Amino acid sequence: MTVYALGHKNPDSDSVCAALSLAYLNTQRGTETLAVTQGKINPETSYLLDRYGMEVPEIKTSFAGEKVFLVDTTDLSQLPDDIKSAQVQGVVDHHKLGDVSTSDPLECWIWPVGCSCTILKAMYDFYDIKIPTGIAGIMLGAILSDTIIFRSPTCTDQDKAAADDLAKIAREDDLQALGMEMFKVKSAIKGIPIRDLVERDFKDFDMNGNKVGTGQLEVVDLSLFDDIKEDLLNDIEAFRKEGGRHSVLLLLTDIIQESSEVLIASQDPSIIEKAFGVIPENNKMWLKGVMSRKKQVTPNLEKAFA
Amino acid sequence: MTVYALGHKNPDSDSVCAALSLAYLNTQRGTETLAVTQGKINPETSYLLDRYGMEVPEIKTSFAGEKVFLVDTTDLSQLPDDIKSAQVQGVVDHHKLGDVSTSDPLECWIWPVGCSCTILKAMYDFYDIKIPTGIAGIMLGAILSDTIIFRSPTCTDQDKAAADDLAKIAREDDLQALGMEMFKVKSAIKGIPIRDLVERDFKDFDMNGNKVGTGQLEVVDLSLFDDIKEDLLNDIEAFRKEGGRHSVLLLLTDIIQESSEVLIASQDPSIIEKAFGVIPENNKMWLKGVMSRKKQVTPNLEKAFA
Repeated sequence: MTVYALGHKNPDSDSVCAALSLAYLNTQRGTETLAVTQGKINPETSYLLDRYGMEVPEIKTSFAGEKVFLVDTTDLSQLPDDIKSAQVQGVVDHHKLGDVSTSDPLECWIWPVGCSCTILKAMYDFYDIKIPTGIAGIMLGAILSDTIIFRSPTCTDQDKAAADDLAKIAREDDLQALGMEMFKVKSAIKGIPIRDLVERDFKDFDMNGNKVGTGQLEVVDLSLFDDIKEDLLNDIEAFRKEGGRHSVLLLLTDIIQESSEVLIASQDPSIIEKAFGVIPENNKMWLKGVMSRKKQVTPNLEKAFA
Repeated sequence: MTVYALGHKNPDSDSVCAALSLAYLNTQRGTETLAVTQGKINPETSYLLDRYGMEVPEIKTSFAGEKVFLVDTTDLSQLPDDIKSAQVQGVVDHHKLGDVSTSDPLECWIWPVGCSCTILKAMYDFYDIKIPTGIAGIMLGAILSDTIIFRSPTCTDQDKAAADDLAKIAREDDLQALGMEMFKVKSAIKGIPIRDLVERDFKDFDMNGNKVGTGQLEVVDLSLFDDIKEDLLNDIEAFRKEGGRHSVLLLLTDIIQESSEVLIASQDPSIIEKAFGVIPENNKMWLKGVMSRKKQVTPNLEKAFA
C-alpha cells in the first residue's frame, strides 16, 4: 500500500520539496512513497521544480483509509478534513507541535530549525542514502526560501550546513544569487488576482477555539504593494468573514529591510495589539525585524489568545 | 533556566533511564538539564540505578512556567496537571502521538522502536557525545525491560543494535542473564500491597472522551498471581470507579510463555470483546502472543472506542 507524503494546505516550497524528498528517501528505505500536494504549487516552487528537472506532484485532498507521512505541519487545520481517518506513519516538521494524534507508534523528526528539508538532509545522512542531484537542488531551494536566504531569525547553523552540503551535490556555487532569483520570482505579483495573493501562503490555526489565519508574502521591495494594499485590506476582511475567522493577518515581508508590514482584519483588534505591543493604524502595523511567522508571529498570537 | 527531563506517571525503567540519559546528553550539548520523575521508582528501576551507580532522580510534579523535555509519552493524561503551563522544549518517545501541543517550535525524536533509550542512543551518536559507562548501563537495562529481553513484538533491529553497542560500553557480556535477573526482581510481588501492584505500571488514556486505564505486570511465571488474582480483580473494579474510568485492564504477562492473561473491569465489557475478538470469562481473558501494551493492546482499544 502506497504511503503518501503530504504537506500543508496552500503548499509552499518547503512543503512540496520536503514531500518529494521524503518520498524518495522512504522508497529507498523500502516503503513505496509518493509525494502529493493539497493544491496548486506557487510560482517559486514551480521555478524550483523546473530548474532541477523534477515533476510536479499530483493534487490529492482525500486520505480516508490511506497511509500518510506528513511534512511541514502537525496542525489539523492545515490538513485535509478526513486526515483523522488516515494512518499517519510519521512526521517531518520544524514548527510547533499541533493537534495531530495517532493510535499507533510512528516516526517523527521535528526539530527547531529553519526548514523541513534541513531535517531531511540529516535523515538522508542518518539512513546513509545518497541524495540525487535534482532532489538536492529542490531541498536547497526550500532552505533558501524558508530561511529567506539565511536572514530569518529561524535560520540555524544546521540550515546553513545542510545548504552548503546540498549546494555541492546540486552544483550551485552562488547561493545568494540563487536565493535572490527565487525571491524575484516570488515578487512577481503584478496581474495576479488579489485572492490568490491572500491565499498563496496562508495558514489557519485553532487558537484556543478561535480560527486565526495568517498569510505571508515575501518580496524584494514593499513598494510593489503600493497600488493594491487597499484591495488586500478589503479582501482579507472579506476572507475573514467568509471563513468564520476571528482574525486574519497578512504579512508583507521586505526581505531586504528584514521587516514586515502587517495588514489586519479582526473581530477584536485589541488582541492583535496585545500580541505585538503595537497599536495598529488603519488596520496596518510595522513590525521591525519580523520576518518569521513561525517564530515571531504565531507564538505571540497563541499567547494572546490563550 | 534548568530544563527538566520528565517521563510519564507511574515511572517505569525506560521513562526514568531515558530522562537521566537525556539530561546528560542535553547538558553536554550546552543546555543544563535535570532528570526528575513524577513518582517513586519501581523495584526494577531501583535495581538498575543501583547496579550502575546512578542516583535516583528527585520527584517533581509541578511545572508551571518551567521548561520541560518529555520522554516516553506525549499523552496529557500521563503528564502533570499543569504541563500546559510549562514550555515543552522537546520529546523523545516511541509511542503513538498523543495530545501534547506547543506554541513554539521544539525538538521531537519519536520513532516506532521498542524503547526510548534506543532513540537516545542514536541521539548520542548523532550529536557525537560519548556515553558514560553508568548511563550506558541504565539505557541497556531500559531496552531489555521494554523489549522483554528482545522478545516483544515491539522490538526492532535498531533496539538490538543499540543494546549491543551499549553492552560493550557498560561491559555486560550476557544480556539474557542480565534481563532475566531484572525480570526476577520485577517478579518479586509477594507481600506488596494489591493497589501498589495495580498502579505499578499503569497508564490512563483518553479514548474518544472515555478514560481507559491499562496496567501491566510482567513476570517469569504467572502462577505467582494464583493467590491474589481475585484481589486484583476486585481492586481494579474499585480503582475504575474511584477514577471515573470507563474500563481498566490489567495485563499479567508471562515473559516465558510470551502471552498475557488480562483482568478486566469495565462499564461495558462488550467494547473489550470487540477490541480483541475474545469473549472474557469471569472478567478474564487469555491473549496468546500478546506482550506489548503499546502495539497489541492500546491500538485495539483506541479503534474499539473510536
